[in-house]
This record gives sequence, structure tokens and C-alpha cells, in this order.
Amino acid sequence: MSERRLALGLSMRYLGYHAAGWRHPDADAAGTTSFAHYRTVAQDAEAAGFDLVFLADGMAVRARDEPKGALAQSSQIADFEPLTLLSALAAVTSRIGLVATASTTYNQPYSLARQYASLDLLSDGRAGWNVVTSWSDAEARNFGLETNPDYATRYRRAEEFVDVVTGLWDSWDEDALLHDKENARFLDPAKLHPLNHHGAEFRVRGPLSVPRSPQRRPVIVQAGASEAGMNLAARTADLVYTVPQSKDAAIAFRKDLRARAAAFGRDPDSLRVLPGITPFTGATDQDARAGYDELNALIPDELARQYLYNQMGDLSAYPLDGPVPTPPADAAVGSIAKNLCDMAQKNNLTLRQLANIIAAGYGARVIVGAGESIAEEMLDWFHSGAADGFNICAPLLPNAISAFSAHIMPALEKSGLLTDRTIPTLRTRLGLPDVKSRYA
Amino acid sequence: MSERRLALGLSMRYLGYHAAGWRHPDADAAGTTSFAHYRTVAQDAEAAGFDLVFLADGMAVRARDEPKGALAQSSQIADFEPLTLLSALAAVTSRIGLVATASTTYNQPYSLARQYASLDLLSDGRAGWNVVTSWSDAEARNFGLETNPDYATRYRRAEEFVDVVTGLWDSWDEDALLHDKENARFLDPAKLHPLNHHGAEFRVRGPLSVPRSPQRRPVIVQAGASEAGMNLAARTADLVYTVPQSKDAAIAFRKDLRARAAAFGRDPDSLRVLPGITPFTGATDQDARAGYDELNALIPDELARQYLYNQMGDLSAYPLDGPVPTPPADAAVGSIAKNLCDMAQKNNLTLRQLANIIAAGYGARVIVGAGESIAEEMLDWFHSGAADGFNICAPLLPNAISAFSAHIMPALEKSGLLTDRTIPTLRTRLGLPDVKSRYA
Repeated sequence: MSERRLALGLSMRYLGYHAAGWRHPDADAAGTTSFAHYRTVAQDAEAAGFDLVFLADGMAVRARDEPKGALAQSSQIADFEPLTLLSALAAVTSRIGLVATASTTYNQPYSLARQYASLDLLSDGRAGWNVVTSWSDAEARNFGLETNPDYATRYRRAEEFVDVVTGLWDSWDEDALLHDKENARFLDPAKLHPLNHHGAEFRVRGPLSVPRSPQRRPVIVQAGASEAGMNLAARTADLVYTVPQSKDAAIAFRKDLRARAAAFGRDPDSLRVLPGITPFTGATDQDARAGYDELNALIPDELARQYLYNQMGDLSAYPLDGPVPTPPADAAVGSIAKNLCDMAQKNNLTLRQLANIIAAGYGARVIVGAGESIAEEMLDWFHSGAADGFNICAPLLPNAISAFSAHIMPALEKSGLLTDRTIPTLRTRLGLPDVKSRYA
Repeated sequence: MSERRLALGLSMRYLGYHAAGWRHPDADAAGTTSFAHYRTVAQDAEAAGFDLVFLADGMAVRARDEPKGALAQSSQIADFEPLTLLSALAAVTSRIGLVATASTTYNQPYSLARQYASLDLLSDGRAGWNVVTSWSDAEARNFGLETNPDYATRYRRAEEFVDVVTGLWDSWDEDALLHDKENARFLDPAKLHPLNHHGAEFRVRGPLSVPRSPQRRPVIVQAGASEAGMNLAARTADLVYTVPQSKDAAIAFRKDLRARAAAFGRDPDSLRVLPGITPFTGATDQDARAGYDELNALIPDELARQYLYNQMGDLSAYPLDGPVPTPPADAAVGSIAKNLCDMAQKNNLTLRQLANIIAAGYGARVIVGAGESIAEEMLDWFHSGAADGFNICAPLLPNAISAFSAHIMPALEKSGLLTDRTIPTLRTRLGLPDVKSRYA
């Protein structure tokens, strides 16, 4: 195992994570549906030294007009399909990792295995798959159902789905393609493996119709915080996204996950935990605060409440300028909400202040401060075992990349902990171990 | 309706259609899995003036080792997933249309509608969808079934599938996105339409999570030659691929299809028929013939017989140097085989000669000759109502593009019938009518 490095990912969906970023004078509001916007973001992130860009996804327009008026204000509602967009970005970048979310609930493993293997080929080994289960009824209704399958069903399917996909990625041995013109041997059929999977959820024969890609196994990312989610991550993931609101919570989560990985027979160091943070930064604390306040002033009340309800459930009975109540025991309220609620009560925040924090980072931990102090905190988390790197949920793109570059990156670079940008393939650059083919 | 133009598409899968092209000294045998190869082909085709590049597809490794030894010789067995590859090509081209095959049998309409809308956005309106039903048991076995659904079931599903996809593409009115920063109105919710489709095969609520793309309706391509296939094409397609072996057959097919389109209430001129041809060309007939013979000499017997059996069913009981028998009434033998058999019997070909023709163009009509005579024939077909353009199933890529450019293109250009390359969007360039949104 190589020396432990600090991994840096950039969440690049839409114009960034701030709900009202699109209203900022610098923002290209039409960027959410413009390839030119995403190309700039990916190229800037690559130049800045990020290890990967990441696209979250949902297979539906999930936003509703609740409270009334919020829908018209929302820029985070529709965009590109992630695998097509990342494939296009593969052609105009050369070093940065490309990680797309895809659902195990409403896809088929054979199709998904092909798409990621293809992206990995296109990008010379820079593909990653963020494995999710779909949680919304809006998605169910686009795929023939009225309500989404329950949690246990989804995770059962997800576990088998990942096994089928990784099995298909093993279809072609590295030396299966011979290209031997003289002897008319294009390939060695003995090095081509059908999978013959017969499971409870899937029957898939294989082999894959995409030959072995540079990484063979694209980097697997997960973000499960539930019992089943953490087990899936501990068993199969390379990178894990999480959104703790405190260092202690981050340490506890990472420790738990590493123990689970070990219980699955894995080296815990083969699994990297990347907390999501939304940094508002500048040369000084004052500059950073001014930027934060400027963006927050653009959040209409309806939109603030929509983001609040999305994470915390319906709190319309509580005044925005009153204290944060304990959220209702609602199916829609998960671990992110619990973390946010604890943080808000500990800091005596009003409901409006909490709503602003959610609208600023969509639930990721918001940090406002001078670049050096943020870098220091990141390094402290890294050294304390709270993080192996970070998923930067930037407020507004591409602006946030230059701010990160100017104010935070220098101290991170000085630490000597960043990855070597010249190493090819995302897996190798991140120091992740190769996973043996099941046919090796 | 604008003046009728001759449409030129290039089938760009693998290294071209010739089964042994990969053995040619000029061939980059590793090109089937190299993005650099496909980038060169797409950029060369764009520079040469082709209207579109096309990627065929199958969701399985279909080739079997029959006769023994053929599998090792086959380069047309595995490659990129088409939508990811075309998305990457969208980023490195600017004018050429990008058409990918996708199956209605093993996909979901919501996912597919997203991917093509996304490709259309990425490419500024150059996307096309070749609608197919999957025909092989190899595909069924990658998607949970033992045998492929029967023909009637597949076409019933395909009809509804196309309607759902086109309905989802209508989700967003052209002026739904407002981007109005001052009044905090990103979009007008009244211009966002759920589909609420409840059919026999699909229940899909919508709206699509990809906003309106430049063409809104990517160009729809089909290749059905059966009764149900022709009806689906006549009702919904913009372009139709076909592989007639004679001008008379081409005229009859096009006439039939146009009559069906009219019966569906469509202007027959809104539907363009593109026969597939595999030209072997040069400055003279002798040069062309020499190139054809050179490539055919590279076809091993096993491979020739594999291609023959793929199109004609198992003919292993017949000697390769004997006459072509009437093919067995086999489920795998379709209209392509019937056309090939008629042509072979009419020309007194041996089975080996027929096998070479199939291995040279995978069933498309092979034409060997000086560029001018091929161009003349193409123009004659265009003027006789046998074709509205051609799907060039080139033998070896990228070489065939320069040969086509040098020897065939000049006479086509002189005719003044080619499209205006500067017209944006594939639909407009081809002179295809806009299809009204169902919410207009």
C-alpha cells in the first residue's frame, strides 16, 4: 500500500450546490444545460489539481412546488444525463477522474457495466461509479411503479447488482485481444469469460460486449449512511461520501466503516472516506463571510423552505425566525437531517439560519473562512482520522474553483499530501489497490 | 418542404464492415477499442461532408465459435457502448450528425429519452436514435430471459416505447427556462409537462429530467423490413435503413414505405430511405477490384462461413465452391438473406463468392468500381426513386473515407444535391420537418 494521500473530489452538478447561485451576477444561469459550462468546470478542476469531478443524479424531476412558488425558483431540477455528459468531458480532459451516479434500482446491470467500461476506455482509465439506490416515488413513477421499493428490497438488489457488474467487468482477461494479423487471431476465446450469474434478482450470462478497460474495475463510490448502506460500502466501495457536521461524527463514521471493511476481509486502508464540505472562502475571514452573505441574500424564502423541507421534512408549522425543532419522525428524514438538527441545536441556530445552511450546501457541512484556516481544518481532519480526503460541494461554479485554488490549495499542496497528478488511471492515482479478476 | 437532398451517412462501427479488414496492413487492429480511432473516423467523415455517422449495436457478444476457429478471427465482437462513444465524439466534432442504435426490448424509455436528449444538448442538435428490437437469445440471456420475446411482442413494445420517448422529449416547452435572476424565476412551471403515460407495456409519469434539447426530437432512424417493422418506420421514423440488392427492389421498398407513411397521415417526403452500400472504389475499375480482392484474400474460410451462416442460416452441408442453395426456412433468416439469395442465384455465384460478399459488407450491397461509376449509380438511384441517400457501410476505416472523398464525392458534389454543411441541427440539415410538440 502506498503512502496515504488526501483525495480531492469536486461535485460539479448544476452550477454548484448553492440553491440561489444561479442568481449571482457572475453566474451563467443557462449553464445547467450548457456543455460549455461543464467543460469549463471540468477543465478548471483538472488544472487546479482535483482528483475527480463527480455528478450526482436522480432519474426524475423530484422538485415539487412546495411551498408554492419554490419550483419556479429552482435551478437544481433538470440537467444532462451523467454518463453522456462525462463521456463528452472525457474527450476534452486528460487527467481528472470522472465519477457518475447511477441507480441500481431502475437500471439493468448489463447495460450499466457496458456504459462504465466504455467510459473507462474513452477516458484511459478515469471512470468511477457512484452506486446508489433510488429513494423517491417520483423515480418509481417513471419506471412503471407507483411507490418506490422499500429500503430492504433496494439494498438486496443493490448488493447483487454490484456483484453482477464487477463480474461482467472481469469478462475479458487483459491479454484476450491478440490483434495477430499474420495468424488471423484477433482474440483468444479462452480468455473471454461468460458470467453465468443466476441470482434472486438477476440472471445474466455475459460476457460483456465491451472489452477490458484500462482500470478493468472503475472506481466504486458509495454514500450509504444506513446499516445496509454502510455494509454495501464496506464490502464493495473504494470511496465513500458522507456528510458529517462535526469532526467527532466524522471520526466515528470512518472508524465504524473501516471495522466493517475489515470484517469483510478487506484492508481498511483500501477504503477512503470523503466527507462533503461546502467551503466559502477568500483571502480573509471577512471576505469569505461577505461572499457567503452575498449568495444567501439571493435565496427567496420559498426556496429556502423547499430545501429545508427536502432535508428535514415539513416544518411549515414552525416560524422561520424561531428555534429549530426536532424534525418529525418522517420517512424522508435520514441521517443527514439528524446531523443537521444536532448541529443547529448545539449552535442555537434559528430555522432560517439552518435553512440557509441547507440551501448553501444541500446538506454538506458549510465552512466559511479564510483559505488557510479551511486548509488547516481539512488537514486536521485528515490527520485525526476523520477523513481521507474531501468531496468539495462547491457553492457556485466555476468561480468556486478559482477561489479554492487561490486560497485553500496552496496550503494543501505545501502539506505534500496531495496525489501525483501525472499518475494515469484514477484508481492508481488515488493509491487504491487493484482488485483481482475472479478469473485470475 | 425544402428541395430534396441526397443524405449521406457513414456506418462507423468497428474498423468498418469488412470481416477481415483488421488484418489489412493499413488497419489499426486495436482501433475497435480505441477512442483515437473513432475520433479520426468521425472527424474525417465530417471533413468529407457526410451528414452523419452511425453506430450499430447489440447488447451481447453474439458471435459463437461456429464453425470452430471463427471466433478467434472475429474483430466484430466487442466495442464501445454507442451512446457514451457518440457523446465523446460530440465534443470533438461540430457539424456531423451522431446516430446510435438502442434497443426497445431491453431498455426503459425514461432512461433512453434522457440519454438521447442529453446527447442532443451536448452536440447542439446532432443526435439521432436508430430504433431497434433485439433479436438474439444472447441478448435475452443478459437480461434475465432464456429466449428472446417473439416478434409480435417486441414490436408491440417498440411502438409504445417510441411514443413514450417522443412524449418525454415534449416535456419542456422551448421557452420553459426563463433564467430571470432579478425576479427569481428560473423556469415557468406551466411550461413543464408530465406525460402521465399508462399503456400496456409502460407506465411513465414524467416530465423528463433533461430540458428541451436543440432538436427536441432527435432524428429517428429505423431499419425494419418486416410488416411490423415497416409500419413502425412509416409511422415514426425520419430515416429508414434498408439493404436491397437491386434497384428494382429498392424502388419497390421505398414506394411501399411511402404509401404506408401516407396512410398514417404523414407527408411521404418527410421520410427518407437510405439503402446500405459497401463501395470498393478507386481511380479505375481495376484499382477498385484490386482493393476488393486484396481484402477478400484476408478472409479465413472459417470466418467467411461464420458470416455466411449468420445471414443465411447453417449451410455447412453445402460445398463452398458449389452453387448457392435456397436457404433453410430458419427463424434466423430474414429479408436480408432472401435478397442476398436472389442476387446470388441470378448471378450464378458460388457459395464462396456469396460468403465473400457478406463478409465484405455484412449484408449491405457490395459495389466494386471506379468512383465516377459508383457516384453515377448513386445519383441514378436517387433520381429513380430508389433512394433518398445512402448509408455507406465502408469496408475499412478510416481509409474508406479518403477513397470515398477522392473518387466518389466529387461527382456527388457536382450534382448539387448534397446538403448544406453549414446548417445547424441534423434535422434541419437533412430538410426534415419539425414535429410539433404534443403540448403546442
